[in-house]
Amino acid sequence: MNICIIGASGYSGRELVSLLLDHPKVTLCAVTSRSLDGKRVEDCIPKLRGRKCALSFSNPSINELAEGDCDLFFLALPHGTAAEFAVPLLDAGKKVIDLSADFRLNSAETYEEFYGQPHPAPEWLAKASYGLPELYELSWEISPLIASPGCYPTSILIPLSILLTEKIVKEEGIIANSMSGVSGAGRNATEKLLYCERNESAGAYGLPKHRHLSEIEEQLSLLSRRHSKEVVLSFHPHLAPMNRGICTTISALAEGELDREKVIDCWRRIFDHRPFVNLLPEGEFPDVAHVTGTNRIDLSVHADPRTGRYVLCSAEDNLIKGAGGQAIQAMNVCQGYEEGEGLS
Amino acid sequence: MNICIIGASGYSGRELVSLLLDHPKVTLCAVTSRSLDGKRVEDCIPKLRGRKCALSFSNPSINELAEGDCDLFFLALPHGTAAEFAVPLLDAGKKVIDLSADFRLNSAETYEEFYGQPHPAPEWLAKASYGLPELYELSWEISPLIASPGCYPTSILIPLSILLTEKIVKEEGIIANSMSGVSGAGRNATEKLLYCERNESAGAYGLPKHRHLSEIEEQLSLLSRRHSKEVVLSFHPHLAPMNRGICTTISALAEGELDREKVIDCWRRIFDHRPFVNLLPEGEFPDVAHVTGTNRIDLSVHADPRTGRYVLCSAEDNLIKGAGGQAIQAMNVCQGYEEGEGLS
Amino acid sequence: MNICIIGASGYSGRELVSLLLDHPKVTLCAVTSRSLDGKRVEDCIPKLRGRKCALSFSNPSINELAEGDCDLFFLALPHGTAAEFAVPLLDAGKKVIDLSADFRLNSAETYEEFYGQPHPAPEWLAKASYGLPELYELSWEISPLIASPGCYPTSILIPLSILLTEKIVKEEGIIANSMSGVSGAGRNATEKLLYCERNESAGAYGLPKHRHLSEIEEQLSLLSRRHSKEVVLSFHPHLAPMNRGICTTISALAEGELDREKVIDCWRRIFDHRPFVNLLPEGEFPDVAHVTGTNRIDLSVHADPRTGRYVLCSAEDNLIKGAGGQAIQAMNVCQGYEEGEGLS
Amino acid sequence: MNICIIGASGYSGRELVSLLLDHPKVTLCAVTSRSLDGKRVEDCIPKLRGRKCALSFSNPSINELAEGDCDLFFLALPHGTAAEFAVPLLDAGKKVIDLSADFRLNSAETYEEFYGQPHPAPEWLAKASYGLPELYELSWEISPLIASPGCYPTSILIPLSILLTEKIVKEEGIIANSMSGVSGAGRNATEKLLYCERNESAGAYGLPKHRHLSEIEEQLSLLSRRHSKEVVLSFHPHLAPMNRGICTTISALAEGELDREKVIDCWRRIFDHRPFVNLLPEGEFPDVAHVTGTNRIDLSVHADPRTGRYVLCSAEDNLIKGAGGQAIQAMNVCQGYEEGEGLS
Repeated sequence: MNICIIGASGYSGRELVSLLLDHPKVTLCAVTSRSLDGKRVEDCIPKLRGRKCALSFSNPSINELAEGDCDLFFLALPHGTAAEFAVPLLDAGKKVIDLSADFRLNSAETYEEFYGQPHPAPEWLAKASYGLPELYELSWEISPLIASPGCYPTSILIPLSILLTEKIVKEEGIIANSMSGVSGAGRNATEKLLYCERNESAGAYGLPKHRHLSEIEEQLSLLSRRHSKEVVLSFHPHLAPMNRGICTTISALAEGELDREKVIDCWRRIFDHRPFVNLLPEGEFPDVAHVTGTNRIDLSVHADPRTGRYVLCSAEDNLIKGAGGQAIQAMNVCQGYEEGEGLS
Repeated sequence: MNICIIGASGYSGRELVSLLLDHPKVTLCAVTSRSLDGKRVEDCIPKLRGRKCALSFSNPSINELAEGDCDLFFLALPHGTAAEFAVPLLDAGKKVIDLSADFRLNSAETYEEFYGQPHPAPEWLAKASYGLPELYELSWEISPLIASPGCYPTSILIPLSILLTEKIVKEEGIIANSMSGVSGAGRNATEKLLYCERNESAGAYGLPKHRHLSEIEEQLSLLSRRHSKEVVLSFHPHLAPMNRGICTTISALAEGELDREKVIDCWRRIFDHRPFVNLLPEGEFPDVAHVTGTNRIDLSVHADPRTGRYVLCSAEDNLIKGAGGQAIQAMNVCQGYEEGEGLS
Repeated sequence: MNICIIGASGYSGRELVSLLLDHPKVTLCAVTSRSLDGKRVEDCIPKLRGRKCALSFSNPSINELAEGDCDLFFLALPHGTAAEFAVPLLDAGKKVIDLSADFRLNSAETYEEFYGQPHPAPEWLAKASYGLPELYELSWEISPLIASPGCYPTSILIPLSILLTEKIVKEEGIIANSMSGVSGAGRNATEKLLYCERNESAGAYGLPKHRHLSEIEEQLSLLSRRHSKEVVLSFHPHLAPMNRGICTTISALAEGELDREKVIDCWRRIFDHRPFVNLLPEGEFPDVAHVTGTNRIDLSVHADPRTGRYVLCSAEDNLIKGAGGQAIQAMNVCQGYEEGEGLS
Repeated sequence: MNICIIGASGYSGRELVSLLLDHPKVTLCAVTSRSLDGKRVEDCIPKLRGRKCALSFSNPSINELAEGDCDLFFLALPHGTAAEFAVPLLDAGKKVIDLSADFRLNSAETYEEFYGQPHPAPEWLAKASYGLPELYELSWEISPLIASPGCYPTSILIPLSILLTEKIVKEEGIIANSMSGVSGAGRNATEKLLYCERNESAGAYGLPKHRHLSEIEEQLSLLSRRHSKEVVLSFHPHLAPMNRGICTTISALAEGELDREKVIDCWRRIFDHRPFVNLLPEGEFPDVAHVTGTNRIDLSVHADPRTGRYVLCSAEDNLIKGAGGQAIQAMNVCQGYEEGEGLS
């Protein structure tokens, strides 16, 4: 399996390069970047120094990529640009795992509403798979195009969606609060991301309509399988002063009797055979520090009889389970490898 | 005005010592601590080094304090212990501002439920003033005992309570999420507070019944002046890797028409003449980094027509507006000083 | 005394604005910035929000400044640009305290060697005072132009220079290692200063010829009053992941008998009446955390009989004692105010 | 190869458990800890959660260990205690890699001078191998007892010792400054290691006679192979606010002509075939952030013609190359595995 990563200069792209270089079943053949063209991968990603890795960044045209001998392309590009690469590669028979937002939504209208531009390839929206292996069956037969989920959506969909499907929580009145490490804001040289601006700093941003909300709501509506109406929820993202990680705290009203064991049983049924979902013992809380560097998501649930609500907590590494790790997990499943190959 | 601080070895106590030493209208005469007895204040609080401050920690008996010539006592003691000092000092005609939880609640039953022990002086519960100058009239005539509010409650009550009073938000379905700096957990040499445990770490804790919830709910019930029923809400505290600060994000359903201006107008009416409440322009969010080192609380409000909810955001320094600064602000009001004397 | 700050958009400039707004003896009349022209100071420096400060950033011409009614100008500009403002202001009879490197050196050759461009106003080099109040007498009569020292030089010159003068340490073989907080690198939106690049990061940079070395060596040569030869030393700056502060560790060979008390006695003689130099008890070490937010420098000395060397340690806040605070201290001295006015 | 780790509750021990669990050539059979006895490894080391690892902490007697079927014991114990375990295990024919200081020195006198107690097993001092694979040949035939080097010594010995051997630098006047992450101080619940004490903090400690100095000097004396006299140097450790990593900056006088290429050539000759020593291109500096999570040490050298000195810089992960990773590297060499097996 020959792999190419397109656009590997950001935090997610770099993490993906590191992970794929160590993957025992695939060969990372090419890594492209306009800004790093010609530089050795090892010189640009300090973690990899001394690895005697022969790979250098290149900057081929889309045509060259489509005609080359790579089988699978990971796109670590900004939304909009990703679709420009994905479509010709797919047309040439290649497989594509896209880490951008371009193919995560089904609805071109929602895309335009949240991303402020018409969708560049709406014909692919219904054809792409949503690459969350814990919740969707994935295979190259189903689709050669996998849209790898956003970091915030992953932290919300895994604990919540199945509880909606199984009518353990109500659709109304769901509130999700998330704290993200600063790498979630990308590797952009802007003043507000300077060390001295973010250190010893914490606060909300982007609410009430952060872009990831569109993906969360559409997926919850699909996964809850209640076609009467769409799920609408409140999503409050925050930045916290740490490099990596997202922790999310979700409040949802119990449907029927409030009973922590119902949630635990449901999670166990769905996730017990999954290598990357970990349920914490009663009384413990997920912590970003416990999952950074892993592809794992830790979950806990707490019942509040005073409010009739469940509190669902999750923690993940935004650059691994929330990005490159999850993309590789999807590839593993599609290829028939062990789900955790190269990820532990 | 002669002042004594009792129990000044923790983070709040130290901050209080620094602030009162610089207060132009009062004299800090004594600072007590069992563990630091005999040591010079300047040697134990590094910020104060080189100040040529003559003060040393002492460890007098309660009787000695009650018979001495200090007029006002700030108690920076653990709950339970604070009441043991407060009652004899009040009986001796002294004034007391207590930073612990001992006199924040009206209900001895709630105290016992949340603090796990019978209240040590229930006869004082109804007599103490709740020391939030933005929301309560304070004077020594009303009470010689002021219970200084908790750090989380301050960050929630200031933005929220008046909106309940004025029926701009509903009592049902309120969710408050807070992120606190690590100093909020106190200066206790426990493993979980070690640098390497908390750095690059973030997560929820103590929910669904954190002790401060009792204070938040009782105050919201009182301040909302709706006597039909008690306010019950969800409160989700989190620790974030920073020394100081709390940021809080509250979701509340609009009562009547959702209109951001209604909140702004209401806040302006109540807070415009207050020196320490600052409303942010539309589109900005409070950030802990902007308020640390000050007695200020920054507020913003965001209307979400999709959910019919307001999102209220606040940020404060947990050791100043959330502790010692607010206690001094209360003293200033009671003494007839400028409200911000010694605080800016 | 009417004050103007020119170029107040960086970290030092902002700190200076905060400090001068609270100074009881002077009036901050104008704050200039090309990039912030027209914006309210309070809106751009979040710490100042809610102060009801009427000041806005302006962008007057040098002529307007020279003809205006400000008496004293603080220049918080890049080197090179600072001289362009200083000379016409001085020619117009104004007083100038320059926080850049433009007037710190006596030698135009050294300036050109270290700053890579000819000095823009060499005629002022010999006339400027070096604004280190602990080591130089300062008055407006001596010079209307004060060059405020660099942050690293301050941390080295205060402990070291007098020991050279008094022949307690040798000129040869001095090594100074410093760790600076990230604000020392300025408020520049470059990739290497992003939060995720500097957090959990530490390393040397800029050696062996960091620009501040020129200032350190020239001052040590002048202050040591040994005219036989120039002092040449090794200076190793490092960045550490914190917002503020510099700690410096200097190794110097004892001249004559190695005796810690000789250093202590010498320091006491020179610094005991200075409000901002603090000698630590034996066995303690200066720590950046103890001095941030103050204009203080903490010092310790340790004798190593195995190597015949003294180890001198210092810690200061790079934005206060290392920049704006020291500039105000110099102003206080020249104006005849208390040396610590507005600084504690 | 059956492996046992004794005393795995600290930061080094936990890292060692993680690394050995993933090592493809060995079986981690037992992990002992008095305080964690009976608990599952996965529950105590959060990174390992969800691994379905059957291992639990146990607390066997030394006799049980000596008679059991483990072949190799890693000791992650405090000095003093380590020797109590090592000697009976060695007597029983087991192999031991000790991460404590107990067998790093040759001289029992030096041990007593620096560690304040008589050496518990001086007969083994001369027999132990010093486990620095880049500088010493290691094999079980040479010794069944390997003393794994300290974190600071590793960061100094690798760049410096060979330059002494080859007479490129002088023995006199060497100064080494190091900055360590807080995990270097261990997992001890003491006030000075609390998050709020170390965050935004930096300073020297433990100088001029930090315990690791004994090891550095003895090794430099041995490795320099100049038997005329002992190497004596200055060592200045500092704590910096980060979890992991050490960066070291060494100043050494050139012997003969100062020429950066001489250092580079010498390093290349010795280290070019070593997988974990990485020489940086001219003008770059090692940074802790680039090596954390790896067993690599990054090196740079800078010539300063003004002082006739070389500046040598290094960076390593104190818990991997400075502890468990290096111990595993030594094991790999002794066992005839690839040197980097399980380490990349």
